[in-house]
Amino acid sequence: MSKFQSFRSLEFNSDALRNAQNRQNQLTKPAGSLGRLEDIAIQLCGLQGGTRALSRPAAAIICAADHPVTQHGVSAYPAAVTPAMVLNILSGGAASTVLARTSGLPLMVLDVGVDGLPKVSSTDAAAYRHHPVGGGGDILVEDAMSVAVFAEAVDAGARAVDSFDDLRVLVVGELGIGNTTVASAVATAILGIEPERLTGPGTGVQGSALDRKIRVVRDAVQRVGTVAPEEALRRLGGRDLAAMAGAMARGAELGAAVIVDGFIASVAALALLKTNPQLRSAFFFGTQSEEPGHTAVLKALDAVPLLGLGFRLGEGTGALAAVPLFDMAVAIHNEMATFEGAAVPEKS
Amino acid sequence: MSKFQSFRSLEFNSDALRNAQNRQNQLTKPAGSLGRLEDIAIQLCGLQGGTRALSRPAAAIICAADHPVTQHGVSAYPAAVTPAMVLNILSGGAASTVLARTSGLPLMVLDVGVDGLPKVSSTDAAAYRHHPVGGGGDILVEDAMSVAVFAEAVDAGARAVDSFDDLRVLVVGELGIGNTTVASAVATAILGIEPERLTGPGTGVQGSALDRKIRVVRDAVQRVGTVAPEEALRRLGGRDLAAMAGAMARGAELGAAVIVDGFIASVAALALLKTNPQLRSAFFFGTQSEEPGHTAVLKALDAVPLLGLGFRLGEGTGALAAVPLFDMAVAIHNEMATFEGAAVPEKS
Repeated sequence: MSKFQSFRSLEFNSDALRNAQNRQNQLTKPAGSLGRLEDIAIQLCGLQGGTRALSRPAAAIICAADHPVTQHGVSAYPAAVTPAMVLNILSGGAASTVLARTSGLPLMVLDVGVDGLPKVSSTDAAAYRHHPVGGGGDILVEDAMSVAVFAEAVDAGARAVDSFDDLRVLVVGELGIGNTTVASAVATAILGIEPERLTGPGTGVQGSALDRKIRVVRDAVQRVGTVAPEEALRRLGGRDLAAMAGAMARGAELGAAVIVDGFIASVAALALLKTNPQLRSAFFFGTQSEEPGHTAVLKALDAVPLLGLGFRLGEGTGALAAVPLFDMAVAIHNEMATFEGAAVPEKS
Repeated sequence: MSKFQSFRSLEFNSDALRNAQNRQNQLTKPAGSLGRLEDIAIQLCGLQGGTRALSRPAAAIICAADHPVTQHGVSAYPAAVTPAMVLNILSGGAASTVLARTSGLPLMVLDVGVDGLPKVSSTDAAAYRHHPVGGGGDILVEDAMSVAVFAEAVDAGARAVDSFDDLRVLVVGELGIGNTTVASAVATAILGIEPERLTGPGTGVQGSALDRKIRVVRDAVQRVGTVAPEEALRRLGGRDLAAMAGAMARGAELGAAVIVDGFIASVAALALLKTNPQLRSAFFFGTQSEEPGHTAVLKALDAVPLLGLGFRLGEGTGALAAVPLFDMAVAIHNEMATFEGAAVPEKS
């Protein structure tokens, strides 16, 4: 049984969607003139089924794991950065913590396999949730996850979502040195295009290190051959990607708007939505990443990101940066006057 | 004496800019990986001269005026919408009021010539400032402003800025049925390209009404002939555009970051900055408008807008929507940990 297909379809309310569209057309502005803020509000109403849109409660989940493929020198930073960055998030100094604080939403680090951490616990800056799922494999020579580890990682993501009540907006991001490499491998296997087009600098590899990264991706994909999208994620991805897919699926199932971060999170969404396309209406894509493969992944998802700020960080930042758009969209939808209510003359 | 050249150059601090760049490179993220948020913070430090960036106090000024050219049927909405929308802003139901409230910044309507308003005063939602500057002309047959009216309108904008203390971010927008027509005329005169490329639907004209609008723009520009950018604004623009230019110039002179709204506000910035390019470093452009002429105007300003949300509303909304980016940029710059401080390993 496919893990990704085990999530229920979300119940999208087309009446609420139509009513929201009608309301937008009555607000004191030319119809459609607030572009994507209108789209966001209408989509939220379809997800929530109400006449007013909500962007809160919102929460961010950052799924973190190690990647044994880093031993092949595919990353600009050493693997020890992953536990160090978990601690940095928890102490409030990471970009994701700062952005979550600025937008006033809780942030959780979901650790599904980070080595080298001391005993850590939640802080005021971020919650820490440790959900051990079993070891990860080096995708060059073995599967990233066994069937059992994969299932456990997906469940870890879903259960993390359940720890929040009544979520309306869910930000999903990742942390894990080496995970652009595995994301490129998953995308290459799913999209069937050349690994060169889907493999980029990540946190900053270039030259011969980038060539090595591309070779690792190509060889890993050849090892696996042609597989279904979910199997591509299980065999070529990583525990952080599986947990992200689980969190996204559970968020969508519950009718939360899922804001997907950059390249790596989008690859997790790709594997999920190619397997369970009924969840698609819940998905938003925060920002166009500078990682060159993001464009092809977004195209395959028929997705246009909300922002284009030149990010290439991950850690949920591209999705967190989009949260204010949801707050603004909701305020516009709920609080603006109508032409009739404000006695503003309509179009001549 | 040129009004626009009477504003002092802003004192841009290149040491503070360099220090800010260095700090960004020490924060716990790959250098440059937060793209335009980094650029915003660095630019703010250059404007403010400090080691930390500030995005507050911030304020929004919406310059409002009538345009006699509306009598030629160039607009989708009747001219009576302008006073009705002033009241709507003041009662808190307009898009600009809602966005200003969401981002927690004060909003002012600066009325430099709106007919048909009852006696109005400031509300909790927005301040109302009436600065009569004299009548406006129908650009098809006469100059939009006499030299005296133009000077008074520019001063009105500048004085409105002075009513706020210690501004770090200034949002400038407009309200006035007919003002895409006059903005297209100003841009056509300054850029010397075909009026068809700079004249679009505004709030929604199409077909024969759009053809009429283009004819009005062409005839008005031909009436005036070749003139300097400031004269183009005086003779073909309107009191709202002149007041916006004054507000922008005063904001820049004081070292505030000026966030310019869409097409019409960008045309006011174009006339100002073609005359006084020393102010350019203070300018940010909020969002790419759907108004087709915006692209050419932005290109002439060497400007890439921060957002691309498909807006075509004006009223400051495209600039207000960008305010959260400034708050996020500042928080990132001031609050993130450094690699050294957080003991995160650096690039291998």
